[in-house]
Amino acid sequence: MTELPPLALSMGDPAGVGPELAVQAWKAARDGALPPFVVVGSHAVIAAAAGAGVPVQRVSAPDQARAVFAEALPVIDVGHAAYTPGQPDDAGARAALDSLTLAIELTRAGTTSALVTGPVAKHQLARVGFAYPGQTECVAAACGIAADAAVMMLAGPHLRVVPITVHVPLAAVPQLLTTDLIVSRAQIAAEALRRDYGLAVPRLVLAGLNPHAGENGRMGCEDRDVIAPAVERLRAAGISASGPHSADTLFHADARATYDLAVCMYHDQALIPIKLLDFDEGVNVTLGLPIVRTSPDHGTAFGIAGTGTARPGATIAALRMAGACAARRAHG
Amino acid sequence: MTELPPLALSMGDPAGVGPELAVQAWKAARDGALPPFVVVGSHAVIAAAAGAGVPVQRVSAPDQARAVFAEALPVIDVGHAAYTPGQPDDAGARAALDSLTLAIELTRAGTTSALVTGPVAKHQLARVGFAYPGQTECVAAACGIAADAAVMMLAGPHLRVVPITVHVPLAAVPQLLTTDLIVSRAQIAAEALRRDYGLAVPRLVLAGLNPHAGENGRMGCEDRDVIAPAVERLRAAGISASGPHSADTLFHADARATYDLAVCMYHDQALIPIKLLDFDEGVNVTLGLPIVRTSPDHGTAFGIAGTGTARPGATIAALRMAGACAARRAHG
Repeated sequence: MTELPPLALSMGDPAGVGPELAVQAWKAARDGALPPFVVVGSHAVIAAAAGAGVPVQRVSAPDQARAVFAEALPVIDVGHAAYTPGQPDDAGARAALDSLTLAIELTRAGTTSALVTGPVAKHQLARVGFAYPGQTECVAAACGIAADAAVMMLAGPHLRVVPITVHVPLAAVPQLLTTDLIVSRAQIAAEALRRDYGLAVPRLVLAGLNPHAGENGRMGCEDRDVIAPAVERLRAAGISASGPHSADTLFHADARATYDLAVCMYHDQALIPIKLLDFDEGVNVTLGLPIVRTSPDHGTAFGIAGTGTARPGATIAALRMAGACAARRAHG
Repeated sequence: MTELPPLALSMGDPAGVGPELAVQAWKAARDGALPPFVVVGSHAVIAAAAGAGVPVQRVSAPDQARAVFAEALPVIDVGHAAYTPGQPDDAGARAALDSLTLAIELTRAGTTSALVTGPVAKHQLARVGFAYPGQTECVAAACGIAADAAVMMLAGPHLRVVPITVHVPLAAVPQLLTTDLIVSRAQIAAEALRRDYGLAVPRLVLAGLNPHAGENGRMGCEDRDVIAPAVERLRAAGISASGPHSADTLFHADARATYDLAVCMYHDQALIPIKLLDFDEGVNVTLGLPIVRTSPDHGTAFGIAGTGTARPGATIAALRMAGACAARRAHG
């Protein structure tokens, strides 16, 4: 089994918690608990976030990172930016964008084995010309994948969820849900769980939209008319799928033991249980891409950046999961 | 401090798990861990569910229950019904309805100190002339309270939630939410937490409707236009209230430590977290009534009735909570 190239970790916004979490993840990784990674970002920012106690080493290419990693945090430098925690500016946004772009390129080229993205602020990126709603859409476009074929999964130690609709008003959800959309996203998710997570027959459950999954149409018809046919089509395609289930009884421990992935109909239906169970270790994974991409499931947290209170669990979990998925793709 | 009258526990549908859970709760209560209660139901059903090992004693009035309770499960008999677990029939539904009606009367009269209702099947009750959507509406009507002034709270060891809308299609929720409705229900809940739960200044948080509580109107306007004004009105009325908060970050342990009650906008937003955290000990409490009323937060479970697998935790928790609330009302 050949050694994989290192992971690429993009810095994120230099005014957010991304730089300090990269440093903390490296400290955790030295124990060998994580695969080697290289930060793609501003060397000046990472060195400032690291402080005197943590050595940071500029490298010119990922293949130098492995040799460096035991002694210093390797950085591929995208150029100077200021390290001013909590105070985002346009220069920082440009550095974040350059980091993301280069990290995608390196991973697409295979010189890094997976992409882990640090947190950015969408409104800051928009100020410097970023045309996407978020990093996920940018990654998908760079990979030549339609944005709606990239599926967001949130995964933690206790639960995996895929929300079928995401950042839309709740009132728009019932109209946006179609059998085709549910089938398409669930199929992408099932295939990814086989390929990247080593689950030969991933078990999917689909949550209902309405209370008690609609009670056969007495409390809303979408469960019967839209979701149930999706379950039938998934089963006909050989996927282990059941539902629609009452969402309120789907997430306690006994229920979770019966499935590998809960397919949810809207943002909070998916994110309430995962953030309840795995608040500090939630990983956002983009399924359906030709590359492995994960990120910690939190934002820039400008309000606490630089204070040393940001918890690195989600970044560490995102790096670990990216490494495991990349290894499965490479070695089966 | 005078001793309170016993609690009234209505039998529920004789074909469901109500009778066996009444028996199990009595076994747990003999240790003194629960206040004395009297089952209002069919003596024949309770005696059959109890079997040879558990003595059941018919009493003619609640004031006899306390003397009996240490030695036998006291029952106020509403007349004969068959004990056929898993096979509901009209005679059983009539016995369930008679049990409920009498238990309400006894509690309204003060001869029992609180009402705990066993599980019924609404469609079975409807066959014998029950005109309400559920037991809660029946209790409210018997107390002369408008159904929409009776507020459902779900409470467990880890969380209390009030859903503003309940058994309606998700698509109807945005239109049903009004500032008046939210303020009214939250005020009833806050007053009940003071009176029945001993919380001098109950801390309420209000969940947003849309993802990230709408991000100031970018993902739905209800959070800004409907919920935020409700928070302002509650605060103006002297209630500790905050929000609207992103629902997905409201239920992990650190967040829960900051409040006493989460006011949620729809069924699954409230029930996903409470059933995740407190599946076997969830209590359904009706706030805003002149009497104390609780129930275990589960249904008749016809499918497992009589098998001995139903878990009594929720019934025991409902009895314990009813006793504690009744004691606070009586003694302050």
